[in-house]
Amino acid sequence: MAAKDGSSFRMSALPAIIIAQLLGIAAITLTLVWLLHLREGVALDSGNSQKLFNAHPLLMLLGLILCGGEAIMAYKTVPGTRRTKKFVHMLLHLLALAFGGLGLYAIFKFQRDLDDPDMRTLHSWLGMGTICLYALQWVIAFFSFIFPGTTYSMRANMKPWHAFFGAVIFLMAICSAETGLVQKFIFVGREGLLINFIGITILLYGIFTILSVILPRPYEN
Amino acid sequence: MAAKDGSSFRMSALPAIIIAQLLGIAAITLTLVWLLHLREGVALDSGNSQKLFNAHPLLMLLGLILCGGEAIMAYKTVPGTRRTKKFVHMLLHLLALAFGGLGLYAIFKFQRDLDDPDMRTLHSWLGMGTICLYALQWVIAFFSFIFPGTTYSMRANMKPWHAFFGAVIFLMAICSAETGLVQKFIFVGREGLLINFIGITILLYGIFTILSVILPRPYEN
Repeated sequence: MAAKDGSSFRMSALPAIIIAQLLGIAAITLTLVWLLHLREGVALDSGNSQKLFNAHPLLMLLGLILCGGEAIMAYKTVPGTRRTKKFVHMLLHLLALAFGGLGLYAIFKFQRDLDDPDMRTLHSWLGMGTICLYALQWVIAFFSFIFPGTTYSMRANMKPWHAFFGAVIFLMAICSAETGLVQKFIFVGREGLLINFIGITILLYGIFTILSVILPRPYEN
Repeated sequence: MAAKDGSSFRMSALPAIIIAQLLGIAAITLTLVWLLHLREGVALDSGNSQKLFNAHPLLMLLGLILCGGEAIMAYKTVPGTRRTKKFVHMLLHLLALAFGGLGLYAIFKFQRDLDDPDMRTLHSWLGMGTICLYALQWVIAFFSFIFPGTTYSMRANMKPWHAFFGAVIFLMAICSAETGLVQKFIFVGREGLLINFIGITILLYGIFTILSVILPRPYEN
């Protein structure tokens, strides 16, 4: 089947948006409980290298996944003109990239402090691929859709590809998060359970975010 | 954006289908090199527990990912009537489930032989979730679309959801594969590189499979 119009689902995006928001809140809450309560906390500038390490999953979740997901949903969740929605979409993706950059800094500094070699694991390849494509997509979209902007017919041609690659990069971020959780944390008791639930919550957040994009606005029904 | 018709991409599915097939061949080739050449080989019934363990990634790749992906693409790749395409789609998914069941048997037997507790890691949760949803989706689809089948209007209502959940379950299988590769194999030299490339190839196979579903048939242009 070629992609059908969202209206063929006979349901509006509203329930998916609400569930995605609840899952986003659950993911960040579980992650904070994990890092602050079961681990030593989070810091970018500290003698405790564990705090530096912990900054990596927190910043990546806040950035590429939560800000990224909210940016994707902004066209449905932000009130106002199309111009406003587009501006919030662009700004949230920029914020996502800023968090992502800090998250990269944290993990590279942690590895350097430990004299560990960088970029060897599948998680590091997936993660680096994700953030590079994310930045590339942002830059191309900024110059095409915002400033200076291309012709209307070029934008119309680019839009489905922008949306498709956006979904791919977002799902790559989810996949990077899952591999990161699995790679570093061998199962131990309550912490293991918590980490599994963080992984499931992040995955479901991704699924409902994409669903909310596919489904039509309520008033389009 | 609500999902646009595939024709707005202004490209046919043919290049995506060809690339997906090449990536599928690459993924199975790399995996066979890994398991047969760098590891001890594969067996379901052997005194060597490593061979039993190795059967798990091979069967899961053959099943939920490769047969699953080919089943998804069958509507575009199989010649003949819609009835033929649908039958091949159903049969390939059944084959995927059969491989998946054997893959589960292999890993549970391996864990039992080692007296390891089951179902503790995020990979095991993701993987078990995937195969259960896969089986559920197959059963629901079989009774709705094939035998005895529901009314035409019910089928039309179900079809977009069947396609959406199909894509979700397929991407969950990809994500399970990535976490499985990362969980068990700490980076070591050539084998580590090979495993990273297997992971990247599987991810790209998933992306091009979904793309080939979204893009229209050549003659629809």
